[in-house]
Parts: sequence; C-alpha cells; structure tokens
Amino acid sequence: MLRGIGDDAAIIRLPANHLLLLSTDLLAEGIHFDLATATFEDIGYKAAAANLSDIAAMGGVPQHMLVAVAIPGSRKPSDIERLYRGLMRACRLYGVELVGGDTSASRQGLFIGVTVTGIAEPGQALTRDGANVGDLLYVTGTLGDSLAGLNILRTRIRTKGKAGKRQHARHLSYLIERHLCPTPRIEEGQLLATHHLATAAIDLSDGLAGDLAHVCEESGVGAEIEIAEVPLSSACRWYAAAHHLDPFRLALTGGEDYELLFTVSPANRAKLDRLAQRTRCRFSCIGTIRPKKFGLRLKHRNGSSRRLTIAGYQHFQSQRATPREAEWSR
Amino acid sequence: MLRGIGDDAAIIRLPANHLLLLSTDLLAEGIHFDLATATFEDIGYKAAAANLSDIAAMGGVPQHMLVAVAIPGSRKPSDIERLYRGLMRACRLYGVELVGGDTSASRQGLFIGVTVTGIAEPGQALTRDGANVGDLLYVTGTLGDSLAGLNILRTRIRTKGKAGKRQHARHLSYLIERHLCPTPRIEEGQLLATHHLATAAIDLSDGLAGDLAHVCEESGVGAEIEIAEVPLSSACRWYAAAHHLDPFRLALTGGEDYELLFTVSPANRAKLDRLAQRTRCRFSCIGTIRPKKFGLRLKHRNGSSRRLTIAGYQHFQSQRATPREAEWSR
Repeated sequence: MLRGIGDDAAIIRLPANHLLLLSTDLLAEGIHFDLATATFEDIGYKAAAANLSDIAAMGGVPQHMLVAVAIPGSRKPSDIERLYRGLMRACRLYGVELVGGDTSASRQGLFIGVTVTGIAEPGQALTRDGANVGDLLYVTGTLGDSLAGLNILRTRIRTKGKAGKRQHARHLSYLIERHLCPTPRIEEGQLLATHHLATAAIDLSDGLAGDLAHVCEESGVGAEIEIAEVPLSSACRWYAAAHHLDPFRLALTGGEDYELLFTVSPANRAKLDRLAQRTRCRFSCIGTIRPKKFGLRLKHRNGSSRRLTIAGYQHFQSQRATPREAEWSR
Repeated sequence: MLRGIGDDAAIIRLPANHLLLLSTDLLAEGIHFDLATATFEDIGYKAAAANLSDIAAMGGVPQHMLVAVAIPGSRKPSDIERLYRGLMRACRLYGVELVGGDTSASRQGLFIGVTVTGIAEPGQALTRDGANVGDLLYVTGTLGDSLAGLNILRTRIRTKGKAGKRQHARHLSYLIERHLCPTPRIEEGQLLATHHLATAAIDLSDGLAGDLAHVCEESGVGAEIEIAEVPLSSACRWYAAAHHLDPFRLALTGGEDYELLFTVSPANRAKLDRLAQRTRCRFSCIGTIRPKKFGLRLKHRNGSSRRLTIAGYQHFQSQRATPREAEWSR
C-alpha cells in the first residue's frame, strides 16, 4: 500500500500478473447484528471476517480493507474505537492492511460498509459455476454452530441436561464463539485454489441449503446431500439434544458458519484428503453433484430421499439474525 | 472484468504496471441525501458521482464500481430499480463497470455503500500532501452552486426579483441540477496527472474552506484565497442577490460542488492555462500557498485580509445536507 487513510482514495501496488478480487458488504443494525447480543468489538471483528470469507471462497489472498461506518449520535466515540479494534483484530489475524476508513453520521442505527481486496493467480480463482455432475460435495469445519450460538445468546437458556455444568459452559462458550468470531477459511481456500482441487466454491453465509442452491444455479446442476455425513460439533449435538432439536436441521438451515462449501472431481479425492491433513481444519464429503433435473435432495441414513426446497430470499426480514429456513418437503 | 455480480467477489484484471486506486463511501438517508428533495434515481447518480469524484481527485481513470444497498421494507422494488438506474447512468457516462451489487434490509432508513476502483500510472497519482509554499491555488468550475441548489430544493422559494420568469427558471434549474447531478472532474484530474501539473489535489465535497484546510494540513502549509477570484456562476450570483446573501460565502462554505481544488507550481502556470483550453471546464487561480504559520486567510478586494477559521467537523450533525459553516473571523 502506497497511500491509505487521509487522501481521497487509497493507492495500492498489486504484485505483477495477479488478478484483483473485490468484495463489499453493508451490515445493518437489527438485520445483520444486534447490540443486545454482541459488543462493538464483536461486531467489528465479524464484519471483517464475513468479508474475508468471501475472499477465502475465491481462493484468494486477502490484502486490503476499506471501512465506512455510519453511526448514530447516541453512540460514544469509544464505541467506534471498539468497533475498529474488532476490525483491526481480524485484519491482523489474516495479514490484511486497513487502507481506508470513514465515519459519518446515521439518523438511526449503526451501519458498517466493508470492502476487501484480495489477489489470486490467473486461472486459480474459485468461482461458483464450475461444478460438474459426479463431483463430490465437501464442506470445511462443522455446521450449525453459529445458529446454535445465536439462539443461546438470544435466549440465554440454561438447560438442565444430564452433563455436568462444566461441560455445559464449555459447549455454550464454544457455540457463542463460533457465532461471534467465525473463522474465514483463508488458508483452506488457498489450498483448494493453488492445487486446482475445487471445481466450484462458496462460503456458507446463508446456510448450507441456501448456498448450495447458489452453486447449483450458477453451475446448472443438482445435488444430493447425505445428511448423516454433514459434520456436527459435539457442542451442536449437545445443544440440539438439550432443546429437542434435530442437529442436522440446524446445520442445514443455520447461516453465518462461514465454512467453505466446494465441489471436487472424484479423481482428486485422494489428493484432497492427503493435502487436507496438512491443515488443522476438518474436510467432510457430504454428497454428490447430480444433473440439474435431479434438483436438490437429502438422502437419509435409511436410504430414503426427500427434496430440499429453499425458502425464497427475503430481503425485508431479519434473514441474517434469524437465518432463513429451508423447508423439508417430500 | 472477468467475473462480476453473482459470485463471492468480483475478479478484475488490471493493466500491467498500474497502481490501483480504491475509494469507498457510505451514504445515509437524512444525512447525505433526503428523499424529500431527490428521487431515487438522483440519489443513485449522486452516490456514484461522489465516489467517482474521489478517483478524479487522484488523477485516476475510474474502472469498476461495487454497490451495497440497505433498504427499509417500506420501499418498493421499483425504488431499488430507480436507484440502480441512477447509479448505472453515472457508470455509463464515465466508462465504469458495475461489478458487484448487493441489496439487504434496513430497519430504518436507506443506506448506500459505494466502492470505486481506478487506475493510475506510477508517479502520476495526485495526493493531498504535495503543496509547496508559493504554489498557485486553482479550482475547476464554479463554487457554491450545489448549496444554492439545495437551498432552493429545501425551501422552493419563488423569489419575485426583477428578472423575467424565464431567467428565474433557467437559474433555478441550473442550480438544482448542479446539486443533484454534479460532474466528477475525471477528465480534468487526468489532465493534471498525466502532465504532472498539480503538486496536490482534492475534490470539493466539504466546501472550499474545509477541503483547503485538509490540503494545508496534509502538506504542512498555509494558504491565502483572493476572494474576488473565486469563480461564481451567474445563477449563483442571481440566487445570492435575490436572497440578500454574499455569493462568496456560498462558494466558501457550500459543500458537494465536486470540483477539483489543486495546487500548481508557478513555473507550470502557462502550461496549465494552455492545456486547460482543451477542456470545456473553467480553471480559476484563486490564491497562493503560504507558509504554515500564515494559516488560512482570505484577501479581499480592498487588500484587507482576515483569518478563515474552519468549524470543527461534526460527525453527528447533518453536515452534508447542511454543508458545514466556515466562520469569517478577523
């Protein structure tokens, strides 16, 4: 970076022969975050992490961040400082330089605009449109944790399960942490990109069902998820059991896990499994890409299969704070 | 652009050996724009133009735009379409490609995040920090028109001046147009950059007094404005006369003219004047850069001089819709 905050625009020198990746997000109070369940620092961190996750899903190396905040007069200068502290924490963790920051007034509600740049070598950027029939469907990490964490924050339910209290506290804090401080899968995205392993990739911000639908739409294919293969954390299983919920439903419909969903040619399966061992991240094969007319289906342990219908994207509802629902229809 | 809307990030191929310019802005309803005085299309156009003006002030060639909109449920889909129509109009006019767009919900108020990229050749980008003592101070176009236009929109005052009605209507529509549809000085900024004419540059978004203070602060210098040289449109003069206002005060304190303010070595004056004739834009020399201890001063026609004190930047006031005031103190 040659010039950052304090001029009309940032001036950046890109390494030669690289592609520029650009992603932007606008996060609104009461829609994407809630000051009742997150601190300013949490909100700043997550705003940055959510954008970095987009660069991860492209297999890119994140480079620079620009932030524009609109903040109501009722908030204190120290609140803005805390917000930036959270943003900077994510930037430091992933080697990203904050090159632009602007704060202005908002009549009502806090709004955060984040723009992130990344770079990728030509031919290596991961897109949503390359999935082929027969490809294997993978995810990183575990799913449903963020929704479970959000539910805990919202209701602060103290269940009286059979496990000891220490076990509860550990699960609760794990799930809350997964909701407030998601891990953008930067390293994993780059692994997929540099080794040409993924035919398509997306990050899970809207939930497995919704984001898989995006990949299938862009690639012109269908998909079958083997529900028993969807990776769950022990904390998510505990939470679901304590609340008489189906943990796989949490995994399928919960948003904001910021894990990667990607497709791999069967010929590359062994290579992926070998390289995945170099990371500290779990890679799970959860299904297969099918022809378009197959649609999106869930295969159950007993071999039965049902259609997965995605509820339409509702802009004017709190679709992030309450991750949208996928319907389980036959 | 290799990939735009419909993936996690845009993929852009930059021309070799160029610097990347990046600018972002977050515009809030009731702060930066008002639906009582502007249509959705106006707001879209202006949001784009304001960001393009930042690239103009760097002497860059604008390339790509990303937009993120948070919109309340009370607004219709056709409102969003109109907003994008305005954004696209500005993009078309300045050869910019819209490569990312995201619409989400807002609990209260419309918010628009715009990110623009540009390119500049190494060593050509214009910054705020290069003004030297003795440099001449220039502006493009005419100043104060935007504030006059905003005042007209706000009060819809129909004055009963001496001029005929047709004259009024022409002036009124000119000033309103200057407020709603400012011209980012892209071509002029590039002229200054490619011919190495400007030692420093900024775009006039906060008003002449405030933006000159930014340049002086970044460059570590003072400045003297010859008030009689500040360029005024005949419409602005008419408006000021009709409302018993000092037109120079409008020019000095009014924001959002999006003209360029820049500094030029006296040795380059003749070259600038010659090249300026190639453009359709007026270039006016309005003063001189002075040592830092001189401060910011206004020189009047009669030779008297007074200090220009800038009112502090108030984040939590409507400082754009009501451009901030510069005090005229001795």
